[in-house]
Amino acid sequence: MVVVMCREADEAQIAKVIERLTEQGFDVHRSTGVERTVLGAVGGKIVDHRSYELLEGVAEVVRITQPFKLSHRSFKPEETTIIVPSNSRNGSGLVIGRKEVMIMAGPCSVENREQVLTIAGKVRAAGARVLRGGAFKPRTSPYSFQGLGEEGLRYLREAADANKMLVISEVMDQTQIPMMLDYVDILQVGARNMQNYTLLKQLGQVRKPVMLKRGMAATIEEWLLSAEYIMTGGNHEVILCERGIRTFENLTRNTLDLLAVPVVHSLSHLPIVVDPSHGTGRRDKVIPMARAALAAGADGLMLEVHHDPDHALSDGAQSLFPEQFTTLMGELRRMAPVIGRVVY
Amino acid sequence: MVVVMCREADEAQIAKVIERLTEQGFDVHRSTGVERTVLGAVGGKIVDHRSYELLEGVAEVVRITQPFKLSHRSFKPEETTIIVPSNSRNGSGLVIGRKEVMIMAGPCSVENREQVLTIAGKVRAAGARVLRGGAFKPRTSPYSFQGLGEEGLRYLREAADANKMLVISEVMDQTQIPMMLDYVDILQVGARNMQNYTLLKQLGQVRKPVMLKRGMAATIEEWLLSAEYIMTGGNHEVILCERGIRTFENLTRNTLDLLAVPVVHSLSHLPIVVDPSHGTGRRDKVIPMARAALAAGADGLMLEVHHDPDHALSDGAQSLFPEQFTTLMGELRRMAPVIGRVVY
Amino acid sequence: MVVVMCREADEAQIAKVIERLTEQGFDVHRSTGVERTVLGAVGGKIVDHRSYELLEGVAEVVRITQPFKLSHRSFKPEETTIIVPSNSRNGSGLVIGRKEVMIMAGPCSVENREQVLTIAGKVRAAGARVLRGGAFKPRTSPYSFQGLGEEGLRYLREAADANKMLVISEVMDQTQIPMMLDYVDILQVGARNMQNYTLLKQLGQVRKPVMLKRGMAATIEEWLLSAEYIMTGGNHEVILCERGIRTFENLTRNTLDLLAVPVVHSLSHLPIVVDPSHGTGRRDKVIPMARAALAAGADGLMLEVHHDPDHALSDGAQSLFPEQFTTLMGELRRMAPVIGRVVY
Amino acid sequence: MVVVMCREADEAQIAKVIERLTEQGFDVHRSTGVERTVLGAVGGKIVDHRSYELLEGVAEVVRITQPFKLSHRSFKPEETTIIVPSNSRNGSGLVIGRKEVMIMAGPCSVENREQVLTIAGKVRAAGARVLRGGAFKPRTSPYSFQGLGEEGLRYLREAADANKMLVISEVMDQTQIPMMLDYVDILQVGARNMQNYTLLKQLGQVRKPVMLKRGMAATIEEWLLSAEYIMTGGNHEVILCERGIRTFENLTRNTLDLLAVPVVHSLSHLPIVVDPSHGTGRRDKVIPMARAALAAGADGLMLEVHHDPDHALSDGAQSLFPEQFTTLMGELRRMAPVIGRVVY
Repeated sequence: MVVVMCREADEAQIAKVIERLTEQGFDVHRSTGVERTVLGAVGGKIVDHRSYELLEGVAEVVRITQPFKLSHRSFKPEETTIIVPSNSRNGSGLVIGRKEVMIMAGPCSVENREQVLTIAGKVRAAGARVLRGGAFKPRTSPYSFQGLGEEGLRYLREAADANKMLVISEVMDQTQIPMMLDYVDILQVGARNMQNYTLLKQLGQVRKPVMLKRGMAATIEEWLLSAEYIMTGGNHEVILCERGIRTFENLTRNTLDLLAVPVVHSLSHLPIVVDPSHGTGRRDKVIPMARAALAAGADGLMLEVHHDPDHALSDGAQSLFPEQFTTLMGELRRMAPVIGRVVY
Repeated sequence: MVVVMCREADEAQIAKVIERLTEQGFDVHRSTGVERTVLGAVGGKIVDHRSYELLEGVAEVVRITQPFKLSHRSFKPEETTIIVPSNSRNGSGLVIGRKEVMIMAGPCSVENREQVLTIAGKVRAAGARVLRGGAFKPRTSPYSFQGLGEEGLRYLREAADANKMLVISEVMDQTQIPMMLDYVDILQVGARNMQNYTLLKQLGQVRKPVMLKRGMAATIEEWLLSAEYIMTGGNHEVILCERGIRTFENLTRNTLDLLAVPVVHSLSHLPIVVDPSHGTGRRDKVIPMARAALAAGADGLMLEVHHDPDHALSDGAQSLFPEQFTTLMGELRRMAPVIGRVVY
Repeated sequence: MVVVMCREADEAQIAKVIERLTEQGFDVHRSTGVERTVLGAVGGKIVDHRSYELLEGVAEVVRITQPFKLSHRSFKPEETTIIVPSNSRNGSGLVIGRKEVMIMAGPCSVENREQVLTIAGKVRAAGARVLRGGAFKPRTSPYSFQGLGEEGLRYLREAADANKMLVISEVMDQTQIPMMLDYVDILQVGARNMQNYTLLKQLGQVRKPVMLKRGMAATIEEWLLSAEYIMTGGNHEVILCERGIRTFENLTRNTLDLLAVPVVHSLSHLPIVVDPSHGTGRRDKVIPMARAALAAGADGLMLEVHHDPDHALSDGAQSLFPEQFTTLMGELRRMAPVIGRVVY
Repeated sequence: MVVVMCREADEAQIAKVIERLTEQGFDVHRSTGVERTVLGAVGGKIVDHRSYELLEGVAEVVRITQPFKLSHRSFKPEETTIIVPSNSRNGSGLVIGRKEVMIMAGPCSVENREQVLTIAGKVRAAGARVLRGGAFKPRTSPYSFQGLGEEGLRYLREAADANKMLVISEVMDQTQIPMMLDYVDILQVGARNMQNYTLLKQLGQVRKPVMLKRGMAATIEEWLLSAEYIMTGGNHEVILCERGIRTFENLTRNTLDLLAVPVVHSLSHLPIVVDPSHGTGRRDKVIPMARAALAAGADGLMLEVHHDPDHALSDGAQSLFPEQFTTLMGELRRMAPVIGRVVY
């Protein structure tokens, strides 16, 4: 922390700030300039810097350490690689965070057995290795379809096994975790639950990867701190997922913040994937944004695909037709090598 | 819903849209203008309007009904008044949403028994009728103080009873509800949990008032829809609380959206209170914003007060000193009658 | 500026940063902590702190001086008071920035002679001392009414003189300044022109007060820097005007940032007024927000009033009826003394 | 416009709305549903829809026509192609808006003759066809470098001619236009001037292409309306440029809104380019975002390049080294064909 004193601050005021900093365990270095005095405070515990701002004679207080630890690159300089081992169900397993770009695809909501089986077959044929599908749906309105629950997870698992795929699905509450572990390979935390700390703490106890979506108004720093809640519990297999943030622009559902991809790569060793389906909200915008996400360096993509989007129970408008998905996969496959990545 | 066709849309395209609308139960009214055709669709079920935008020949689709029902004024034109009956503990009870402006005050976090007793005595003397204090704290960082839990609630209740006050405290997870009901009169849902639908649904089963804080990036519409999640469960005693939204301005912690007060009063019959402590983040800004909230028509104020904010375990910088709170109460008491309200 | 080195930074990297800082005239103070080294740089010229962020071994760079000077309280601790001297036209003149809250009222656009005369009489009778009215209108669409130009200014002046009022009107381009000086007492810079630096520099040459509206997405810091453009030219009579900022909320036209009032009062000695008409966009919201602005400590209010808003050529929806304005003035008059102000 | 009446609206209220609409030239179509009445209003002049919202019995008013005309696809379905004819100076001329992706590169500010000549040679060798460089600099602070003015333009022109390139440079005020026309091939309007309507109107009189940067808080609709100000003057050669918008995220200077690229392509026939230098603010983020912009479908890129960014007078931190630019060009050249484009 750095405390910048006002030009007109007197010695007594400076002394009081130094005393308080020392009391809180800081090592204080004083720089007396011609115009003003600056106090550098190193070490010490986590304090609310605003409490120093309110002291007399203080002009400004600047935090100099980022509050995250486990998720930060200075804690672990090399990239986190998450390995889902191969087994009889998923074929060859999966490695997340290396050269391969992980492609997750499937319907927004699981609607029935046939729907999931149909879509799983199609997205697997086009190259997707992870099947997505919502069984518990956090809907803004209580009057919208809320998901099939465990029944939906059963269909997902069956469809994934039939196609040697992995399953990812959203968990909405800590009470759902034990049951979900029987069905899914990756647990997803939705944007609205990014700061549901009770849920995050419980996911720290789990030994499966967790994909943490960015909250609609979460700064990158808050997002990493939420990852930190999972990691402090002992689960270091966290995948971040950018899905669009809320801005003043209202022609689009969200503003997809692709710049978050290289920013996260600088700050953290965790892999980051992009969801252009929620990030754009419209099928015709998903394709260019999926390409752009790959070009920006994303470690994976999550895409909604539906064979009959006109009758989808949720988000049909942002679901790709299977043929569009196949074409897109071809484009991604050709673009990836330019930046040293690969799409299978 | 209104579907505006493109200028160049042909009859086949228009017919297809009409067919689809009819299929979904809408009553369609066609307006054929010189330049373009507009289809008004009345009735019908809730649909994703984006799916119509993607049909050929469609220029724009406009939703014409707001998705909320129970919280909307057209459902219940008169103001909701919430009555907490008097009992041996709280003295004369409380009426929220009428002429009296409800004042809630107390520390950010419950830290120990003495702290709460001290502060409760002071805020009661100045006129506050409801004691606030956090026992479960949703902190952005896992390394910050997380609250005393049930022990904190016990201290709160004791301090409130000793001063004939009511208790409001935050619930973070559905599993905490049954225990909390023994201690609190009003359950608070924090900004980060505004879209924790599992929690909201459970609060719909409770028979005590719920104060629902606005999410940092929640539109007023989404906020009312979250209230709707509680109300559809049968609990109609919802109090809304504006506490600042996230904007590009970063000199202040949040932007307190006081305009939300008259906007909510137009749209909904639910009472709305303002929290200028979180809304501003700094003690010296709390006072003018508390006055402004009253002048904007707020039905109540929630204020953080601490007798020793320099050593508070959370948010000391935004806590008023008891003497400041007393002075502020005096100002509010003199301002209220100008707009037909009263502060006791 | 404070440069925080990475934990793993070596001596050579630290030396390079120190060398560069010294080269740019900084006085460098080194704090070598157990975990990391922090370099405090005092003095020196204005530099782009990002260029230090990109040096090897640097973790973070923090700017410690605010870039504004003339507008900052540390430059001039006492409030700026602007005095428009009395003359035969305006009666008793005007003092802005002291105890009296300045009330500016009038139509959005000047439409014709009768309109301005009618409205001026009504707002003067209710207590307004400054007549507002747009002669040059910056409209988002080129197809909207663009204002009467000089003819409009003539009507404004005539109506003001007839009622012993002052005139404020918007200047859109530097070429309009000389002509406008004949008609107006205060020159207004609109939100869209807040960073039109050519215009601001010219206004620095003028010897009449300038009211500078905050840009829709301008931070308070940028706003003060724009004031600085006028002040460096020699014109220190700048009045700031908050008129709503752009946020994700779209039920309202803008989000009126009343918190800006006490924030500006802390940072700067310049007076700040509030425009709740543009800040809310709807007549029924103007009244509570005008009261709230006063309660927040605003040094003035700018309000749109129209005797026939249904036929106004611009912004009729946000114009108060004269009777509403009169009632509001009565409320403001009774509220002001509570906070030590006065409304005549 | 569609006027949705309240459930409880009576016949007199409905009649009044119909009367008013008719008075303003609308053709009214009434849909009387079971629950509520909806009035479709087609034709009519541009009105402020808020004035209808304030009428009694009205629940909501929805605008159904977008206010832009000349820039909209429905006005001109095929893409706008801008052709800068070849001449003795620029070699083969330039075609903007077809298959070729236009690459503009150069320093942020023109600093001196040698600097521009050096950089121009390097970016031309790497494939750029347009030389960028600021001679008039709109700086947030009046204490920052403000540009070389006409002298800078002379250096730019000389360096461009020597390398058979075109010149683009920013115009800040209408008074600069005639002089600038002697030096530049494309006039750039900066983000801060996007709503400087006096300037835009004058640019409508010019017969050279104008590149219009998006304002930091401008919606896409407002941006197209600003283009419309230029086009209504008769100059249809407008190029849009996305350069990052302002959001709550403050780890990055701006949030680059790449989704604007496909959105603009849907709504308008105008070409759109991306400036990842200002859009990200840091050299290491420019490269992934430049690739992403191409992948999203941008018609061009504007990039800052400096051979000695450590001593640049502005924005050195976001300038690429010439070698980085050359590498990036190679990547773009290999990616473009995947989406049917070409980079020379």
